Amino acid sequence: MRYSVTDQVQHLAERLRAFARERNWEQFHTPKNLVMAIAGEVGELTQHFQWLSPEESGLVETSVEERQAVAEELADVFIYLVRLADTLGVDLIEQAEEKIAKNEVRYPPDLVKGSAKKMP
Amino acid sequence: MRYSVTDQVQHLAERLRAFARERNWEQFHTPKNLVMAIAGEVGELTQHFQWLSPEESGLVETSVEERQAVAEELADVFIYLVRLADTLGVDLIEQAEEKIAKNEVRYPPDLVKGSAKKMP
Amino acid sequence: MRYSVTDQVQHLAERLRAFARERNWEQFHTPKNLVMAIAGEVGELTQHFQWLSPEESGLVETSVEERQAVAEELADVFIYLVRLADTLGVDLIEQAEEKIAKNEVRYPPDLVKGSAKKMP
Amino acid sequence: MRYSVTDQVQHLAERLRAFARERNWEQFHTPKNLVMAIAGEVGELTQHFQWLSPEESGLVETSVEERQAVAEELADVFIYLVRLADTLGVDLIEQAEEKIAKNEVRYPPDLVKGSAKKMP
Repeated sequence: MRYSVTDQVQHLAERLRAFARERNWEQFHTPKNLVMAIAGEVGELTQHFQWLSPEESGLVETSVEERQAVAEELADVFIYLVRLADTLGVDLIEQAEEKIAKNEVRYPPDLVKGSAKKMP
Repeated sequence: MRYSVTDQVQHLAERLRAFARERNWEQFHTPKNLVMAIAGEVGELTQHFQWLSPEESGLVETSVEERQAVAEELADVFIYLVRLADTLGVDLIEQAEEKIAKNEVRYPPDLVKGSAKKMP
Repeated sequence: MRYSVTDQVQHLAERLRAFARERNWEQFHTPKNLVMAIAGEVGELTQHFQWLSPEESGLVETSVEERQAVAEELADVFIYLVRLADTLGVDLIEQAEEKIAKNEVRYPPDLVKGSAKKMP
Repeated sequence: MRYSVTDQVQHLAERLRAFARERNWEQFHTPKNLVMAIAGEVGELTQHFQWLSPEESGLVETSVEERQAVAEELADVFIYLVRLADTLGVDLIEQAEEKIAKNEVRYPPDLVKGSAKKMP
């Protein structure tokens, strides 16, 4: 299912806003609590990968069920991230584009090529 | 700065793919490592909020500098999340829309209204 | 149950070393993997507290079951922390005592009293 | 520096309690906030390991400075964990010994030997 709106992240933010309002859950959605919710979901995501070798973590050999479980964890992290950004009035797309632009200047390919020590 | 592409998240994913390729950093961007990078950035985000009360965490009173720092942390989390999803072939927008649809059924407003115990 | 050994953390470390060896799990207990295991357990711990107000988080009103669940999460974090420190040859007690000594000098009571902004 | 007290973790807990009291920081040390502080420190710890291969993460090749930095991150996680346990009235040593005893029963060596899938 794809939404044909111009701004897909904005669509998610509005849907999540309605979701919280209809359940009277806005009271719990303080930025502090949402940051913790992100941390909790990232913890779940981490548990899927903690015992895998870097090669195994490509998931090529794993089951359809495991792939779906990981995709849902990504969605959970993303959902709380969108909700937090909306609560704080931050435009995720704009901030990410600007941050990448910054990193492109900060890490010139010639100077950092292939070195993990130079990574952000 | 707004990108007028239909799929803004896809635009970010492609820009990040080029960013990694030009620096020969693809070798470090295994799913396992990217999950850790997300966890690290979420740790930084958490540190901005850990001593704030829920009310203070709304950031209304904080400085422009602090607002900008938090916005950048959100961008950092988002960037690694987009990169990880791209590496795993997961469509973040689609998965998030589906997960919200699931949650809308799973948490009927009448049954969970105003109760934190019933929250995901 | 209390162990009358001089060094209780060392006792835990040795018990965990034997636990891993008997299951042939030493191969998975690389520092990288153990760091992820800690992050995963901290995520679970976080989920117990994310929707609570700071006051509620004192747990005074919560059930015996919830108290026990939180105590077990603390144990899980501690277990992986002891195992990681043992793997890296780090003495947790010694390092913590030294770090507190450093912080006592770095944060003079008169200068930081009651201010969250001055906290580590 | 070693403390000759019977209970070294208890010694740390008492020292941290005094540290907070002298700075009037007890007001910030709610369990919720301390959980976030642990998550933040674990994020820092994670950043030391995110781009390393599992083999490199053994740290044998890394510098004295990096080893010391990692040891300090472990101390930071441990310090907040001890402080949180003290605030909640949880005995870390006792809970960890009990949890290991549980795991010894739950994961019989013969059934789980060498399999990451069977790991907690």
